[in-house]
Amino acid sequence: MSMLKVAIVGSTGYTGVELLRILIKHPEIEIVALTSERFAGQKISDIFPSLESHLGLKCQKLDVKEISKMADLVFLALPHTMSMTAAPYFIESGVKVVDLSADYRLKESQIYQKWYKKEHTSKNLLESSVYGLPELYREQIKEADLIANPGCYPTSIILALAPLLKKEIVELGDIIIDSKSGISGAGRKTALDFHFPECNENIKAYGLGTHRHIPEIEQELSELAQGKVIISFVPHLIPTTRGILSTIYAKLCERINSKELIDIYKDFYKDDCFVKICDEGKMPNTKDVLTTNYCSLGLAVNEKANRVIVVSAIDNLVKGASGQAVQNMNIMCGFEEAMGLDYPAVFP
Amino acid sequence: MSMLKVAIVGSTGYTGVELLRILIKHPEIEIVALTSERFAGQKISDIFPSLESHLGLKCQKLDVKEISKMADLVFLALPHTMSMTAAPYFIESGVKVVDLSADYRLKESQIYQKWYKKEHTSKNLLESSVYGLPELYREQIKEADLIANPGCYPTSIILALAPLLKKEIVELGDIIIDSKSGISGAGRKTALDFHFPECNENIKAYGLGTHRHIPEIEQELSELAQGKVIISFVPHLIPTTRGILSTIYAKLCERINSKELIDIYKDFYKDDCFVKICDEGKMPNTKDVLTTNYCSLGLAVNEKANRVIVVSAIDNLVKGASGQAVQNMNIMCGFEEAMGLDYPAVFP
Amino acid sequence: MSMLKVAIVGSTGYTGVELLRILIKHPEIEIVALTSERFAGQKISDIFPSLESHLGLKCQKLDVKEISKMADLVFLALPHTMSMTAAPYFIESGVKVVDLSADYRLKESQIYQKWYKKEHTSKNLLESSVYGLPELYREQIKEADLIANPGCYPTSIILALAPLLKKEIVELGDIIIDSKSGISGAGRKTALDFHFPECNENIKAYGLGTHRHIPEIEQELSELAQGKVIISFVPHLIPTTRGILSTIYAKLCERINSKELIDIYKDFYKDDCFVKICDEGKMPNTKDVLTTNYCSLGLAVNEKANRVIVVSAIDNLVKGASGQAVQNMNIMCGFEEAMGLDYPAVFP
Amino acid sequence: MSMLKVAIVGSTGYTGVELLRILIKHPEIEIVALTSERFAGQKISDIFPSLESHLGLKCQKLDVKEISKMADLVFLALPHTMSMTAAPYFIESGVKVVDLSADYRLKESQIYQKWYKKEHTSKNLLESSVYGLPELYREQIKEADLIANPGCYPTSIILALAPLLKKEIVELGDIIIDSKSGISGAGRKTALDFHFPECNENIKAYGLGTHRHIPEIEQELSELAQGKVIISFVPHLIPTTRGILSTIYAKLCERINSKELIDIYKDFYKDDCFVKICDEGKMPNTKDVLTTNYCSLGLAVNEKANRVIVVSAIDNLVKGASGQAVQNMNIMCGFEEAMGLDYPAVFP
Repeated sequence: MSMLKVAIVGSTGYTGVELLRILIKHPEIEIVALTSERFAGQKISDIFPSLESHLGLKCQKLDVKEISKMADLVFLALPHTMSMTAAPYFIESGVKVVDLSADYRLKESQIYQKWYKKEHTSKNLLESSVYGLPELYREQIKEADLIANPGCYPTSIILALAPLLKKEIVELGDIIIDSKSGISGAGRKTALDFHFPECNENIKAYGLGTHRHIPEIEQELSELAQGKVIISFVPHLIPTTRGILSTIYAKLCERINSKELIDIYKDFYKDDCFVKICDEGKMPNTKDVLTTNYCSLGLAVNEKANRVIVVSAIDNLVKGASGQAVQNMNIMCGFEEAMGLDYPAVFP
Repeated sequence: MSMLKVAIVGSTGYTGVELLRILIKHPEIEIVALTSERFAGQKISDIFPSLESHLGLKCQKLDVKEISKMADLVFLALPHTMSMTAAPYFIESGVKVVDLSADYRLKESQIYQKWYKKEHTSKNLLESSVYGLPELYREQIKEADLIANPGCYPTSIILALAPLLKKEIVELGDIIIDSKSGISGAGRKTALDFHFPECNENIKAYGLGTHRHIPEIEQELSELAQGKVIISFVPHLIPTTRGILSTIYAKLCERINSKELIDIYKDFYKDDCFVKICDEGKMPNTKDVLTTNYCSLGLAVNEKANRVIVVSAIDNLVKGASGQAVQNMNIMCGFEEAMGLDYPAVFP
Repeated sequence: MSMLKVAIVGSTGYTGVELLRILIKHPEIEIVALTSERFAGQKISDIFPSLESHLGLKCQKLDVKEISKMADLVFLALPHTMSMTAAPYFIESGVKVVDLSADYRLKESQIYQKWYKKEHTSKNLLESSVYGLPELYREQIKEADLIANPGCYPTSIILALAPLLKKEIVELGDIIIDSKSGISGAGRKTALDFHFPECNENIKAYGLGTHRHIPEIEQELSELAQGKVIISFVPHLIPTTRGILSTIYAKLCERINSKELIDIYKDFYKDDCFVKICDEGKMPNTKDVLTTNYCSLGLAVNEKANRVIVVSAIDNLVKGASGQAVQNMNIMCGFEEAMGLDYPAVFP
Repeated sequence: MSMLKVAIVGSTGYTGVELLRILIKHPEIEIVALTSERFAGQKISDIFPSLESHLGLKCQKLDVKEISKMADLVFLALPHTMSMTAAPYFIESGVKVVDLSADYRLKESQIYQKWYKKEHTSKNLLESSVYGLPELYREQIKEADLIANPGCYPTSIILALAPLLKKEIVELGDIIIDSKSGISGAGRKTALDFHFPECNENIKAYGLGTHRHIPEIEQELSELAQGKVIISFVPHLIPTTRGILSTIYAKLCERINSKELIDIYKDFYKDDCFVKICDEGKMPNTKDVLTTNYCSLGLAVNEKANRVIVVSAIDNLVKGASGQAVQNMNIMCGFEEAMGLDYPAVFP
């Protein structure tokens, strides 16, 4: 059988290099092209010495026509608002697309415009695109041509809340989400906030009420709940390179203990190889999942407050981005869902 | 005027060495004795080279009789359950005590016994001791002989919530507190959880429902509110040496915006030199207060959820321990409250 | 073809868990037993959640007889002085051994005794054992039953110096080696030196003239040079989890420039898939090789001082321990040398 | 007595904010002006919240005329090549100058031009300026109007080597200097190399043969030795915010042991309050001196190689920059040399 031909558009950011790390070991694909506006003409292994002796390709400027001829599937690892320009051409040319940007995540184009300050220019694809969270949309992903790969915070949060919302165990109007992220979540573009001496030995909250993942989280939680979910979401920057830990506090509608909840979660995710549920009394560390596509969930109940607390750990660049993108590709292309992704975490 | 003679009992843990760092530059005191069971006979500067050329004292084993003769005031930086053995003798001998352990923080001895697994053996001092949070108990501290110096998490949390509870602005039954702490909060005793390779590049929740600061937080918040406060408290370990950031989510009883709240906070703390209120739209970083006795507070309102979010930053070893202990000493002894503590944070 | 049956003796330290991470994905082996004195009876995935859903085995106490019946090859990841008790039994029983301890690295038993303060109790195996640095001893490894897997510092240093010594380009009497290591090199046993708050934000030299890797480095360098090599070796502790960077300064015997040296190195290592030589003007980062079995070498010449400077980067737990152990196993068992090890580094 | 009026020109980099941290607590000075081209018009405490409630000043654009009228002494914390434009005016106006840039460090203007790619435009001041290393040039500093404050690496290295060179104990032609620095040494300007995810968990060598501190080090070491000193200098970037550890290997001209060397060092620095010599068998940690103006030195002899190894630890922003600048000011202005600088290190 011939290999799937894959191109990475925008290959020199962190999600790009992480895609490459994973795809290089994927047994069913061949990487045929890499694009980069800034590093066009350079060998990818000169930009990322970690790839040396694994990939000899040079970066080229994006030429959608040319890439369309070469590739069966493209990963778009472009900045927001740029994917919606490139994606339509690929789709028309019969090339499957996994878009790691936010451009096709929000179903309502006005909401997109409000949060991204730009009119959506690819509204009809918005309708046919599928939100690429396999644990929730596996069947649709199988049939999809265009995947909107979820954001890192949303992935950690939606997986943590899905069983509670689907089973109508918690109240919708007051869910509190406190997320902590490593600095790589901010991407490879330098800024004072991510300058080592500024974020090392520092803990800070940011983006209260303004973080662009808010509408994505609300959309998906409301879809799960079949009702309007209201969240208080505070992301924090933590001095680690990778990892997101989301601690979520939801009001229970009924009396239920942590053991029962754990059983519900284990059942809910019984067919999902990348979601792990901690045993009672245990909570996940981001280090348990670092470099992998796993999401690890821990559960506790505060009986006095009648609140369930869910703790969710992922690697923001893998399950929160590039690993999930490969998982989506696997599903779209009929490969085993875990292909290229079923390795244990690096520890310590 | 003669100097106040001060002894540090248990001087070789992190709160001990931090007390020494501060006291060495305090203009009104003289350090007369240091105790350490483990390092008795050794010069303190051999244990902590950071103190070399500043303090020539040797550690001695604790002899309450001898220390009582030498010192006007002692800081007890002992493990929990050990202070309540030493403190009574000092108090009887007319020596003032600032206890950095938890032994005199909980007003009800049964609650102490429940959480610390040991009967309280100094119940009558429990009544006369004062909880050493100057912003709330300054007048009582002035008259006190025995100060129960607050825990690090409680300090960050109580200061963040005091105006809301005193002014009856928030509901008492459902306050969510998500705290993130550097590793020095766990003390100097080694354990796998604090071994560098295990906690570096890691983010984790711990102690859900079991952390010993819970009863202390509930006691003080309920006292402020004059009613039973119920909290969901989840502490997290973050790979920094110092710093606590607490993010607190409380339900508003009334419509109020962040500007109004900031005014209330500025007014509430107008006479407190160590509490800073961030301007609207800003949130504190732990790095803003590192190595200092300041607590920095930021406020935001989530109108949809009708929740106020308070973010509180302290240095766990200073305002969360040794700095606050010195602040208490200053008040007890009639010194200026900020003496020895009014320096800017180390940045970066 | 049937799989090679492999046991890990001492599986719960950092080299143990790293062996497991690698072996789990190795296509030709089956892990049949894990031993741990301390965690016997526990599932390995309860000790290391990173292994969950990858390995269901429980740890057992070491019973050499039983393990010998089960395994074709054992990895000994035991503390120094303990391997030499276990290894002889395995060898006698026809089980191949890769020993990650220092017990079979030093060819002269008196030197072992001097540095490890214990008489060597397995002297005849000392003779037949092979020092497991494949780039130098590949042919002997093919035939060996007992491999002394090199230390982490020695690996980074010997690979950096081998071409210079073999080609007689540098003077032997005055080689300076300045190594910087992450904290995982110290193992999983807790100690104050490796307590997060003590080593975070700290840089320090240690073990001057006393580090146990000194005789191992001298033995191998002298063997390469066919003459007595004298080194000044100073290791340093750096606040990273993984990684060793060794910066080596050797006096040139002849005029030679960096370009010529790079050519010599590229030629010397032309058949070694795990050694990478940086292009002129470039130097390796430990991050380029993190989590991998690669050693990356950079070269520069200081013409004024007539010194060559070699910079060598490895991951101390992979090429410096467990990865190299698997590489040795591959060679001993006739597998492809890079099997299970040919993946790119995690970046960032 | 009236206070010394001080201005900081270029106050919003790391050396600027560190100057402010120290000067705010200095009892004999008053900060009268701050300049910043980029942040002119903003309150310094809005740029650095760490300074809030300590300094109310706003930044202004540099106007040498106006500053000259206000200040008795200025600190120039400007980028290299910019100080030599501003300094002459201040000096002519009778304002003392402590220049933290490299502009007046190199005595030969051609060498300056070679390394800084710009002709020196203030050559006559070059002659009258004094290299501000008080331990070597205290008497000249007393009389100076213009101080060239030393670089961070040079400070750590020159102090480590001065006794050996002055006493003619080591050979001049082959001194090896391996320095490790925290990231703040690179300043506050963002760049990919200092982006958190790139330098966290990374160890790297850089600037081999090209680092601009090389001529400064060579000039001062040669001056001390009264002969040409040749060095091999390799700086490394370490993932800490602060701290430089330099490990120096010099060939002994005579047989001497570490105890004798320690005595020589203690005697050499007996009048220097900021240099500490470790006892035999001990080596400094950067953490021992963090946030302080101390330099801590440790000594060992490798008898086989006949090399002395000196390990030197400083805080790059204090003794390596702003603290030393204040020490120079103290000496120039007749204050006690340690004024405002004699506090113990923050630990941990």
